[in-house]
Amino acid sequence: MAGPQGEIEELIALMARLPGLGPRSARRAVLQMLRKRAALMAPLAKMMAQVAENARECEICGNISVGGCCEICAAPGRATGEICVVEDVADLWAMERGGAFKGRYHVLGGVLSALDAVGPEELGIPRLLARIEAEGVGEVILALNATVEGQTTAHYIAETLEGRGVRITSLAQGVPIGGELDYLDDGTISAALRARRAF
Amino acid sequence: MAGPQGEIEELIALMARLPGLGPRSARRAVLQMLRKRAALMAPLAKMMAQVAENARECEICGNISVGGCCEICAAPGRATGEICVVEDVADLWAMERGGAFKGRYHVLGGVLSALDAVGPEELGIPRLLARIEAEGVGEVILALNATVEGQTTAHYIAETLEGRGVRITSLAQGVPIGGELDYLDDGTISAALRARRAF
Repeated sequence: MAGPQGEIEELIALMARLPGLGPRSARRAVLQMLRKRAALMAPLAKMMAQVAENARECEICGNISVGGCCEICAAPGRATGEICVVEDVADLWAMERGGAFKGRYHVLGGVLSALDAVGPEELGIPRLLARIEAEGVGEVILALNATVEGQTTAHYIAETLEGRGVRITSLAQGVPIGGELDYLDDGTISAALRARRAF
Repeated sequence: MAGPQGEIEELIALMARLPGLGPRSARRAVLQMLRKRAALMAPLAKMMAQVAENARECEICGNISVGGCCEICAAPGRATGEICVVEDVADLWAMERGGAFKGRYHVLGGVLSALDAVGPEELGIPRLLARIEAEGVGEVILALNATVEGQTTAHYIAETLEGRGVRITSLAQGVPIGGELDYLDDGTISAALRARRAF
């Protein structure tokens, strides 16, 4: 016998599989839920089941949302002329938090990787090409992570789109807002210097 | 519009109420669940609903468990002559992980606090007294936290039990196993010195 039993133990084991939670913090989270069974645990379980049941990947952009169509693709106010290409739904959420982008998205769901056998098909790149034709897209913004894989994927997409009359852009690189030079890595400082602009 | 929408957003808000998770880590956890809807999210939601529905406080000891009676009170192999008094179910789990205690528990569910209007009634101390009579308890181990409130509660229980012919003990204080003196606080070192024993 070692601490919690049966179903409570199974619940802790499942919670511990979430990122950022280990066995110890999963135990604390479950204890807190047990203390607030009606106010927290029951509504959380219900909402989780509901989302697990109803969440779908949007057939157009790859965003995950609950119920019929993705809110962004369905929004009449969003510009159709611009597509922002992101690796992941997390990146889409991050872009939306910024609130500056008013167009539509294309979620790759990963990056090109020979090792993991992820090719253009898996990332929905043919679907992106079809959208560019169908929606009359004028600009594709490559908002991929500044990693080797992200940039390789960005270059592949840029090459594929060449000669289609589409403007291809990528996010600016430089000093983050509120960032202190002393704490920035050398690569970022070099990139910010290369991309310097008139004051 | 700012990131995830509707039910996904509500789920993130609920997850963020768990200890150790903030809005940011709750978002990461929900994203991971969305990626593993069938393998992780659905079973987690189901187990959570099941525990929320079936978890009960044991009427005898105050432990929380799923299904009829608490496993510890129901176990025929546990000694009835010893009761270990703990503040919280978390402390009971910690004691059980140690695996050294073979008796039964009494979970107070808190500590005495004039400010929060927590008196002996709220902590089930009359119930503890009744058990001591009924179960023929010979020893009460006060495994309360080494905080001011914990120790005040321990002293209150010890005084209440005086003259009932019950041995009252508390956990030893000293250097933790594997602990280095250099990293221990002064209070612990003083306590360990006062309680020194023949080598």
